Parts: sequence; structure tokens; C-alpha cells
Amino acid sequence: SDSINLAVIGGDGIGPEVVAEGLKVLQAVSGAKVSTTDYDLGARRWHRTGETLPDTVLEELRGHDAILLGAIGDPSVPSGVLERQLLLRIRFELYHYINLRPARLFPGVSTPLDVAKVAPNGIDFVVVREGTEGPYTGNGGALRVGTPHELATEVSVNTRFGAERAVRDAFARAQARERKHLTLIHKHNVLSYAGHLWRRTVEEVGQEFPEVSTDYAHVDAATIYLVQDPSRFDVIVTDNLFGDIVTDLAAAITGGIGLAASGNINPDRTTPSMFEPVHGSAPDIAGQSKADPTATILSVAMLLAHLGRHDEARRVEHAVSADLASRGDKVRSTTQVGDAIAAGVI
Amino acid sequence: SDSINLAVIGGDGIGPEVVAEGLKVLQAVSGAKVSTTDYDLGARRWHRTGETLPDTVLEELRGHDAILLGAIGDPSVPSGVLERQLLLRIRFELYHYINLRPARLFPGVSTPLDVAKVAPNGIDFVVVREGTEGPYTGNGGALRVGTPHELATEVSVNTRFGAERAVRDAFARAQARERKHLTLIHKHNVLSYAGHLWRRTVEEVGQEFPEVSTDYAHVDAATIYLVQDPSRFDVIVTDNLFGDIVTDLAAAITGGIGLAASGNINPDRTTPSMFEPVHGSAPDIAGQSKADPTATILSVAMLLAHLGRHDEARRVEHAVSADLASRGDKVRSTTQVGDAIAAGVI
Ligand SMILES: CC(C)[C@H](C(=O)O)[C@@H](O)C(=O)O
Ligand SMILES: CC(C)[C@H](C(=O)O)[C@@H](O)C(=O)O
Repeated sequence: SDSINLAVIGGDGIGPEVVAEGLKVLQAVSGAKVSTTDYDLGARRWHRTGETLPDTVLEELRGHDAILLGAIGDPSVPSGVLERQLLLRIRFELYHYINLRPARLFPGVSTPLDVAKVAPNGIDFVVVREGTEGPYTGNGGALRVGTPHELATEVSVNTRFGAERAVRDAFARAQARERKHLTLIHKHNVLSYAGHLWRRTVEEVGQEFPEVSTDYAHVDAATIYLVQDPSRFDVIVTDNLFGDIVTDLAAAITGGIGLAASGNINPDRTTPSMFEPVHGSAPDIAGQSKADPTATILSVAMLLAHLGRHDEARRVEHAVSADLASRGDKVRSTTQVGDAIAAGVI
Repeated sequence: SDSINLAVIGGDGIGPEVVAEGLKVLQAVSGAKVSTTDYDLGARRWHRTGETLPDTVLEELRGHDAILLGAIGDPSVPSGVLERQLLLRIRFELYHYINLRPARLFPGVSTPLDVAKVAPNGIDFVVVREGTEGPYTGNGGALRVGTPHELATEVSVNTRFGAERAVRDAFARAQARERKHLTLIHKHNVLSYAGHLWRRTVEEVGQEFPEVSTDYAHVDAATIYLVQDPSRFDVIVTDNLFGDIVTDLAAAITGGIGLAASGNINPDRTTPSMFEPVHGSAPDIAGQSKADPTATILSVAMLLAHLGRHDEARRVEHAVSADLASRGDKVRSTTQVGDAIAAGVI
């Protein structure tokens, strides 16, 4: 474990720029020998070859300790193609059943909220989003497309197996935290089949974690809590789609998606986990060194923690925290931010 | 049209209290003879008789000009029972395919947002939520419940017919507004079947409304815009579930669900439309005259507008606006707020 063998997918738009800064910080902080393999995947490759994720590449990815991803997606590619055939395919095939998304308001970071009023105790929670089921499986279909009688369905698939492993992971995370509190977010008053499965799973797995308190919020009400009283949350567990929605909102209230990190994690470690900023490829600012690499750098901290390199992870977080505290309103380039944080990890 | 024949469903928790104030204001403002029929529906009736919405009652509801609903739901009733068999049943059977939810920040109202920073131009948009399809239809099922191999599905049903009538209604509303802008909210990069149906429908119906500009936001990104730049929205059109989520967030950023009104509307007027506050039954504060009746009173304004009584609707809105501007931090009872607004409509 004195080497880290990383697969790197820069991807589209600002992806390669922010990934470069993430790697810069990783090299600066880690005592390990970091070796990287770049994979050219995303819009460019699709336009050139029609390929999204060749099977051989997927097999190669498996051979790494972890994957660092920048961003995938470009308006020139039909909606859904890269998302489903590349990003979601990796998440599904590599069993990334935990999509982990911390939401933490760092000192000095400004947010759209009147924080003094609604979050005097700060914001510090983590969302455990299920990553392989729900409405994300691609089940569904369309009939009579283009006619007045068109019908389109989307099927949300939820298994006890899938919910339980996400819920158990979330309980374990709650157990390890100071407040030991878990909130299930769903919509069980309308989505009764899936909702009851999730509720019962939380009740039953909860027996194994008697110290963890639990509560429940419908997803609509949860968005209200997230802006009116975000301090109430400690660990959130939820399905793939609700998790997608609440983590973007969670990012917004903690300083924006320029700061939001994520890990697509296989806790069983039979495959490499993948770390990526929550933001997208932002083609409008690509190539201008305007993107904030902080979300990627915090994703690198999550990657280090996942590899058991907790001290290095903490040093990255501290360097980010220090940099954020002193940012003020000054505008810096992508590389300047990366340089400053890399200098701070020593 | 010098009489209004209203069906009133006070419902559970704070429902009857807020409805009483809504009716008080309606009586005060309207030149019409208002006659009301109370329907005892909700948790109490279910406990007493096992009934949620008897067919005979549904038939009687059809005979009214409109329905005013307080709130439905109580923790003593299994999740989903009253929601599906009563509330959603009315929405579906009476063809309430438009669930209309204005989001307007009235002067003097405080919000969780740092408004000076994120919404210097104010907040004033309206959400056209489709009301009869999407993941709300109750399609889906469960297999092997209670076993490790349990499977639960939820099917989102989307028809061109259903999307088109909602989209056309939304375009017409946008056309009638100053900014003439329509935003589709969906998640077409993942929910491709339904997403493409909605997108094409907006493109095609848009041809009929050349003056209306359109854009698109994924539902996750939309939650970010709602807190970082809510002024960008004018009219939003979206499906039943995304509409449920974004309208609670929209309520939160415009002063909370104590102020959020809604109309379940059948624009074809073949059945009565139903007006209700967005908030729930709040059993924890029921019977204490603590609930804010403003959302119900603003729903009464929507009811009046729907019945073509635009002058009376405007007078209610003005009275609410004046009351909100002078509220400050004083705590008033439910009836005091109703009295003040009723006095203001004259
Ligand atoms: C790009 C898209 C498929 C993806 C998702 O919906 O999961 C993104 O929004 C995210 O949250 O990582
Ligand atoms: C109570 C529930 C069924 C309902 C909904 O989901 O539509 C409510 O949240 C609403 O928004 O009116």
C-alpha cells in the first residue's frame, strides 16, 4: 500500500482541468507512489468512434485501486447516451451501490441561505444515495412514439437486497458519527410499494444499531428542511433519484456545486470505487481555467479515505478548509486554486 | 353567477381551522351568495366507518362549483390510504390535470434565503404541475414481501395526451404573463422515455406560442437554481412527482408552506376544481389556533379567479399582501389572521 494505481477519466468540458488539479494535490499529499492511467472517454471519443465504454476498457478499469472522474456530458451528444452507457454503466457494473455525498458548510464559505437565521449550528451531514437501482435502471419503454397516443413509462426497481445494503452502510456511517442520527427520505405516502420496502428495511436494519436514532421525511418536505433547518440532518439515506435531487440542493446550500464531492463506492471492495465532483462538464466555461477544482480535490480526499489513507485525506480537507477560509471575493484560476491547496497539504 | 355553491372538506388536523378562515374571507369579499356543503372526510371518518371516499360522495362533489379542501392525513392512518383513496382519487376522478402552484415572495415576508443577494429582482413564478400521471398513478407492485428477495416497482406513466394538455396550459399561462417564459423541469438524461416525450411535447406545442421563450432544467439542477437564482423562473411545467418536490421548495423560499396556495384544476370545467393549501394537516399544532390560514385564503383567491371572479380574487390577494407587509414578528392566532384579512378585502 505504498502505491496508488489510479484510473483517470478526465471526460468532457471542465473535467480534464479539474482532474489535473485533483491529481496535483494527490501527488503533493501522498507518500505513496501514484501511478495514473488516462482513459479517453466521453463526447470526443463518441464523436470519433461511436464508442462510449468499450468492454475492454471496462475490464481495464477493474484493475485499478480507484477511479478519478472529472465530468461526462456534452450538448452535442444526444441526451442520455453518455450518461447511461458510460457514467451509469460504470456505476452499475462496478457495483457502486453507495453514492456518498457529504454536505458540509466550511467556515468562510457564503451560501444563498441566511445562515445566521436558519443554520446557526452549521451544516454537516452526509447523504448515502443508493447507486444501482430506483428509477435509474433504464427499465421502462415507449409506445406509439410521435403519435397523439404515445405512452412512455419509467420503472423504478427496488429490491430488499439493494435497499438493505445501502441502509446498512448508512447506519454504520451514522453509528461512527457524533450525533448518530439517520433520516430516511422517500415518498411512501404515494410510492407505497417502494416506500414500504425502504421503511421496513430501515426499521429492521435499525435493530442492529440501537444507538442510532432515526426519523423520516417525505422528499418534498425534505427540500423545505434543507433550506429552513439543514442542521437537523446528520446522515440521510435515500434512493437513487431522490438522492440525485437532494444532493444538488445540499450542494447549493453549502456553497454550490463547485465544492461538492462524491464517491461512487463499492464497500465490498471487489471492484474499484470511483470519485467525482457532483458538478457537470460546464461546457460554457471549459478551457478557460475558470472552473473551481475544489469539488474534485475534496473527491480526492474521499478517495484517499476509501483507500484507508485517512491521515492524507484529513490533510487535504484541512488544506481545502484553510483555502476556503481565506478566499474572500478574489477570482483565481483553476490552477491557482489547485496550487494553493497543494501547497497547503504539506 | 351571483351564487357560489361550494363543497368544503375540512379534513384532518389544522384543516378545519384554516378552512374556516378561508370561508370567512370568501364571505367577506364576495358579492355572491355563498352556500357551502361540508363533507366529513379524512382520518376521523376512516376510523369510524372504514370509508375514505364513498362513491356517492364523489358524485355529490361533482354537483358543486368548486371544492375547498383543508388538509388530509393523520399518523394514525396507514401511510398512503387517505392520500391515494381520498386526495389523489379526487384529483384523478375529477380530471384535475393541472396542479397550479404560484410562488411569489410578498413584500415584508422573510425567507431562509439571503434575498438581497440571490433574488434582488424578487420571486414571482408559477408551477404547472401535471396532476394525473407520472409516478402518481399507483402502478407498480411488490413481490415476495418481507423476504430477502423482495422486489418493489413503481411505474411512472406518461402519455402524450396527458403531457400535452399540461404543457399547453402552461404555455397559455406563460403567454399571458409579462415575461412569457416557460421552463420544463425533468430528468431526461436518465429518465429517457418520459423525458423525451416531455421534451418533444414542449418543442411541438411551443410552435403554437411563438412569443413564449423556453428553456430546460434537470430537476436536480432546478433545486440549485431555486435557491441561487429563483428570479429566473416565470412559468415552470413539470410532471407530477417533480412538481411535488419543486413546489415544496418553492414554498420554502417564498416564506414557507404557511403561505403556499394551490389549485387542482380541470381547465375544461367539466368537473369542479379543488383548491387547497400546499401544507399538510400538521396534527402537532391542531386545535390550538396556531396554524397560519394564509395559504388557504390565497387558495380561495385562486378559486375566485377560476370562477371568473377576478376582481374579488385580486381584493383577497391585496388584503393578504397588506396583512403580510405589516405582520412583523407578532404572533397571532389563526382566527386573528383570518379576521384581519377579511377586514382588508372590503
Ligand atoms: C449526469 C447524471 C446521470 C448524474 C445522475 O443523475 O446521477 C448526475 O446528476 C449526478 O448526480 O452524478
Ligand atoms: C399528500 C400528498 C399525497 C400530496 C402530493 O404528493 O401530491 C402533497 O404532498 C401535495 O403536494 O399536495
